[in-house]
This record gives sequence, C-alpha cells and structure tokens, in this order.
Amino acid sequence: MKEFSVTILGSSAALPYKGRNLTSQLVNYGGSLFLIDCGEGTQMQLMKYRIRFMRINHIFISHLHGDHFYGLIGLVSTFHLLGRREPLHIYGPAMLEEIIRLQLQASLTNLVYPISFHVVNHSAPVQLFEDERIVIGGFPMQHRIPTTGFLFAEKAFPRKINLEATETYGVPYTFFADLKSGADYVTDKGETIANEVLTIDPGQPRSFASCSDTGFFEALPGYINGCDLMYHEATFMNDLAAVAREKMHSTAGDAAKVAELAKAGRLLIGHFSARYENLGLLLDEARRIFPATELAEEGKTYTL
Amino acid sequence: MKEFSVTILGSSAALPYKGRNLTSQLVNYGGSLFLIDCGEGTQMQLMKYRIRFMRINHIFISHLHGDHFYGLIGLVSTFHLLGRREPLHIYGPAMLEEIIRLQLQASLTNLVYPISFHVVNHSAPVQLFEDERIVIGGFPMQHRIPTTGFLFAEKAFPRKINLEATETYGVPYTFFADLKSGADYVTDKGETIANEVLTIDPGQPRSFASCSDTGFFEALPGYINGCDLMYHEATFMNDLAAVAREKMHSTAGDAAKVAELAKAGRLLIGHFSARYENLGLLLDEARRIFPATELAEEGKTYTL
Repeated sequence: MKEFSVTILGSSAALPYKGRNLTSQLVNYGGSLFLIDCGEGTQMQLMKYRIRFMRINHIFISHLHGDHFYGLIGLVSTFHLLGRREPLHIYGPAMLEEIIRLQLQASLTNLVYPISFHVVNHSAPVQLFEDERIVIGGFPMQHRIPTTGFLFAEKAFPRKINLEATETYGVPYTFFADLKSGADYVTDKGETIANEVLTIDPGQPRSFASCSDTGFFEALPGYINGCDLMYHEATFMNDLAAVAREKMHSTAGDAAKVAELAKAGRLLIGHFSARYENLGLLLDEARRIFPATELAEEGKTYTL
Repeated sequence: MKEFSVTILGSSAALPYKGRNLTSQLVNYGGSLFLIDCGEGTQMQLMKYRIRFMRINHIFISHLHGDHFYGLIGLVSTFHLLGRREPLHIYGPAMLEEIIRLQLQASLTNLVYPISFHVVNHSAPVQLFEDERIVIGGFPMQHRIPTTGFLFAEKAFPRKINLEATETYGVPYTFFADLKSGADYVTDKGETIANEVLTIDPGQPRSFASCSDTGFFEALPGYINGCDLMYHEATFMNDLAAVAREKMHSTAGDAAKVAELAKAGRLLIGHFSARYENLGLLLDEARRIFPATELAEEGKTYTL
C-alpha cells in the first residue's frame, strides 16, 4: 500500500502563538508531496522537520486570509533561489496570481522554474488534480471570503490476482487484465468461475479531507462522506459559539459533528485561537461527540 | 542618557537557515521602537524575544527583495488583529504600498489603524523622520534594485549647566537657556565668563547606521561618517568576492573597509549566506581590517 499521510506544519489561527505556527498541512501520497495552505513561516517549518520540500509540486490555498497564504511568496522565492526546475502548480482564488506576480515583479525576479496558477471555483465541488492513483478535489466551504476545502481520494484499486486460484482453474495470464477489471472466467468446459474466487479484495481506497476555514453548514459532511481522515478547523470552544458563528468559524464541537455526520474514520482538529493555552479542553469537547478525535500537533505525521 | 540600542532579529541572507532568520533589526531609542526591514518570520522573532512590538510606530524597508520585507504583511495583519489604534508609518520603495494594499484587499481587511506609506527617494540622502531627540535619514546604496541605507542620528545635546560655577559667578537662572545654547556670560562688573567655564560638555550625540544590501562603493563611508555603531551586510567571504560583485553584495572584508573609512566605532556584520556554517571565518576576515567587529547575533541587543 502506498504511503498516504498528513504532516501538520502549523496549527494556529490568525496569529502565530508560542510554538504554534500558521496553517499548513503536507500530504504525502506515495512520495509525491502536496501542500495545503502556506501561512507565514511554512518554509521554516518544512526545513525544521527536514522535509524534502523541493518535491512539492502542487500547492492548494484554501482562501486569501493571510494566515493561510502569507508564506507562499517566500516558498516560491526559496524554490527559485535553490534552482528548482520542476513546474509548480498553485491552486487558489483568482487574486493569488496577481499577488505573487506583483511581488516577483517588485524584486525583478524572473523565476528559473515555471508556475501554473489554477483558479479554483469556490461555488461547487470541482476536480483539481488527477493522476493514475489519486484524485484531488475542491469543495465549497462557508467563510467570510470565498474558501475551498480539499479532498484527497485514492482511486479504487484493481482487484488482485489470486495466483493459487488461477492456477487451480487454469486461467491463462492473458486473462489477468480482465480479472483485475472484475470479469468472471469461463473454463474450456463452459464452467463459470466467479471473479471473487480468482481475485483478492484489494481493500478500500482511502481519502483525506481538509476543512479550514468554515462555519458549520448542512452540505459539508456530504462533500467528504466516508473519508478516513479529516482535518477540520476548531478555532473556538462551545462557550464562544456565538463568536464562531459571527466570524464563520467552527467550534471543536462543530468539527466533531461534521466528522460524525460524514462518518469519518478519524478527526484532526486544528487552527486554534491564540486564546487557548490548554488545547486539551478543545479535544475533550470534540471527543464527547466524536471519540476518534486528535489534536493536530505540529511536526506530527498522521498516516491513513 | 537615553537608551539607544539595536536588537538583531534576523541575520540570514536570501533563505532562512538553521536558526538564522531573515533580515530585521529593531532600534530602541528611549523606548520608541523602530524596525528596519521585516523578512518572513519577523513577527515570530519579535514574539520570541518578548519585544513589546505594538510600540513599533515606524518601519523602514531597505528594498524589495523578499528576504527584507515578506514578513511585513503578516506584521501589519497582526497589528490589526490585536486591535492596534496608533498610526503606523512605513518607509520604503513606491511599490510597497501597492503590495500591502493588494493583500489587504484580497482578504477584505479594513485595518482598524491607519498606515501612512512614505516613498523613499533612493538616489540621494534624505531625511525621513525627526523628533526632538533623533533624526532618521536614508542614503543610497548600490544593489541590483533601488536600495536605501538608514542612519539614526541623535541630535546634538544642549550644554549642561555647571551649577557650582554659575553660583560662583552669580549667573541668574534666567540666563540658563542662553548658557545651554553656548552664550558667554557678562557679569555686572563687565567681566566675560566663557561658556565653557559655566557649562559641562554634554557628550557627543550617538548614531547608528544600517547598510543592507549593497556592494562596496566610494561614497558609502561619507554617508555614515563617524557613526558609533554600524550594521553592514557581509553576505560572502573574500574567496567569493567575484560573486559578491556580480550580485552587488559585500564580503566581510568590504564591510570592514567601509567601517574603517567611515571611522565607525563598532561594526556588526550580518546577512550571512546560507553556505556558511562557521561564521567565525567571516568575523576573522572583517577583524583583520577592522578589529572592533562583531557578528550580528539573533536576539542579542547591542547598546550604543
């Protein structure tokens, strides 16, 4: 099974706070690195955790609040200074390209590698990236400015050949591709051998959803239904639910409710307000609704 | 004597490197805080060193290479989130205002405090700020894009009254303002008492110069002549003098030469290339020319 993991680079909302950095998550799928959000200091965090960050080819920016993207121009510049050649794909709101290009222009920088900006449609679920193993999509969230959540979904695996069974029933190698696609096998004598007998269940494809920033809304669980791991912002606790509503953020309880409704496997809460010294209280609030909750801890890698 | 000190917040050139952060220096003059440059992560450094950074009212940006200003938008945003009311003055190249305003616009942020942008003339020495105690000026440097150095110069002090002498010669209090301005006193008997007898030398006013980034050029020492403390970039060592010339940077030896020609009191070298693990070699190179050289160490405060 391919590695599929998420490393938390920043867990603080709005402001950096005593060892808590601004939002960023790194997704590793089979050695390909994807970055979600890039708050100020993200490049330092990538260096601190000794991540081979030149291998990041795709960066997804959820929205244009500074705590989610002010570190992007620094990372783009560092790639340039380190002599990157690989194209970099950046997915986000339309104004992001203007902001990055204006700053490159101010320093008369002609990047030594190409950047492609992909404007994300914030109003409906949309596919952003696909290769032979994984599909990455965006889905709308509800925040004060247009904001996108991201879903990393492994593609369904082909069924695996049961070599013992294929030998028993004399299935030729030439039929293996059909078997992987789910076909039954008909023997020389006209006997039908069910695909399930000749192949092994390859297991369920895995998925990871990232939801930051958003208030709770009815449609959200449907966008990420059945995801194995879900990162969700939990800026406030329930005693500040009114503030959360006003600012279109979530409480730890809101995050847990989304995880429960989405039938998620596990929930990671993050994007903590600087007012909380003791994050255990937020964890308790979420776990009362959704026990399989963990705190998003910086530098820690969560494997699917 | 008023406090007059410089705290180094970042000493790395271009890239952050193992514990070395991007360029920023904090000047404290009598409790007023001034920031010179603001590389990515500067707000984290201000927090780390427990600096009461809301008291920074003036920020000077030398030029628009990212390592000198990518942290400014984050600091501006943090001031906003913390409910700052005091006006903030930012001095720098013309495009800086456009870059900051575009990013505030992208997040629909209406700052709760006013910012005044002051465009710095890069082609000649210019006065940027003045109060009753200090004058801050900019002077041209020679870099790949328009770049300014900054000189913080205490104003000349009025002479101090020598109370013993004024009593001896019967000088009335009403003449003290004239004494402070340098006037001699004529007694009732027509005897002239020299000002030097009646007053005490108040000491020389102090000055701090910040030079980053620049290649060596003949006019530079003249702009900062006699400064007590001088920060100067020393991106490279002499073995890479050709690279320094090409990139319009300085070697440690260049920095020392400027300090010597300017008859500076002390020299701080900083803005070190990430290629140097052992900064002692740069220090040695500078000290061979200008012995009163120190390394700019992050978190360390240098008092004038």
